[in-house]
Amino acid sequence: MTHDTRTLTTAPTDRRPGPTPTELGIGARFSLHPHRDDFVDVIVDALDAAQADDVEVTTDDVTTFVRGTEDAVVRYLFDALRAAAEAGGHLVAHVHLSRGCPGEVACDLPDDVVLATPPVPVLPRCGMPTAAHWSLYPLDDGAPGRQGDHMSAVTAAVDAAHRRVDVTPEHFVTRLDGDLADVLTTVVEGWLTAGRTVRHVATHATLVVASPSW
Amino acid sequence: MTHDTRTLTTAPTDRRPGPTPTELGIGARFSLHPHRDDFVDVIVDALDAAQADDVEVTTDDVTTFVRGTEDAVVRYLFDALRAAAEAGGHLVAHVHLSRGCPGEVACDLPDDVVLATPPVPVLPRCGMPTAAHWSLYPLDDGAPGRQGDHMSAVTAAVDAAHRRVDVTPEHFVTRLDGDLADVLTTVVEGWLTAGRTVRHVATHATLVVASPSW
Repeated sequence: MTHDTRTLTTAPTDRRPGPTPTELGIGARFSLHPHRDDFVDVIVDALDAAQADDVEVTTDDVTTFVRGTEDAVVRYLFDALRAAAEAGGHLVAHVHLSRGCPGEVACDLPDDVVLATPPVPVLPRCGMPTAAHWSLYPLDDGAPGRQGDHMSAVTAAVDAAHRRVDVTPEHFVTRLDGDLADVLTTVVEGWLTAGRTVRHVATHATLVVASPSW
Repeated sequence: MTHDTRTLTTAPTDRRPGPTPTELGIGARFSLHPHRDDFVDVIVDALDAAQADDVEVTTDDVTTFVRGTEDAVVRYLFDALRAAAEAGGHLVAHVHLSRGCPGEVACDLPDDVVLATPPVPVLPRCGMPTAAHWSLYPLDDGAPGRQGDHMSAVTAAVDAAHRRVDVTPEHFVTRLDGDLADVLTTVVEGWLTAGRTVRHVATHATLVVASPSW
């Protein structure tokens, strides 16, 4: 949560022409639930361990809000999740990524700018087997005279997920099993890929590491 | 999780003409995170305390799945949340409601049947102050030749929320503060009301009771 001016000066945010990540409504909300007695220490240490030089982070009484470029937000999330997982024991995390329609910012940016998404960040595998219940919401209103088709982006994302993780269809969600890095990357890839054709895309995932039932 | 045949025979499910709740993809996934040492007992007791005669309930290693009529699903959720909250201490719960496009069931039902939603269940206040981060996703594809407009249903739901709870706009979510019953009712009302004009509607909420920061 510290700001290093030199880092900010050279961050991708500043070189990008046009709308900033803030104007594009790019960011995340998440919460960590280490199911162990010293959960407060695990949460505080995990948030401290994450690289926060180029993101805005605000933790309130419900969730933690993270804002920045897609790359910076995802790396912060991964750092925090990995640190909490590496503390050991049963961990549940809820991750919510959003882009394209920030709550308090009007969605009046040109479509072509909003729909340009960066490459999927490469996250190193960390040896933490993870299961997730994942849902993707491409809010595809279509265009004047053209009907939307939100399920086509969802189907494409689920098809692509097979490349990295085990995929199981469940009611209301898709189950992903694999290394924490691969599960999070799959969620992020679905979100970013849908964002290439749909302006407003949100995704939610409940991730579990080291379930006592395994 | 027990089934009483007599109850099932007279349940609204059986009297409803046309598609069943299962065919309409009506249900929920949720998880409870009591931040206290005996969290396992609190979770197990809360799930046992909820009235499950007329719902299908399956708990796996990630979340708990509930399926039935809208009324039965919401009452089960409320019972479980209230029991976990009344156990005392800091509780976080994640609730995901979905309707209109079940994962494994094709969305080929007539629009007018899918879009008929029942009244909002009346839940008794229980004296449990609750805060929530709420997001509503009306996946409004529009109709042939007609563009969708997902934000109109979201705006209407947020406007209606003011009738029951304190409402604060936040990034990516709407914050709700009020009695546990009123917060859950607001989430449900938004979901059901959006379902009157949009076929596939999902909603997610992170609820917190007794945060140590209050």
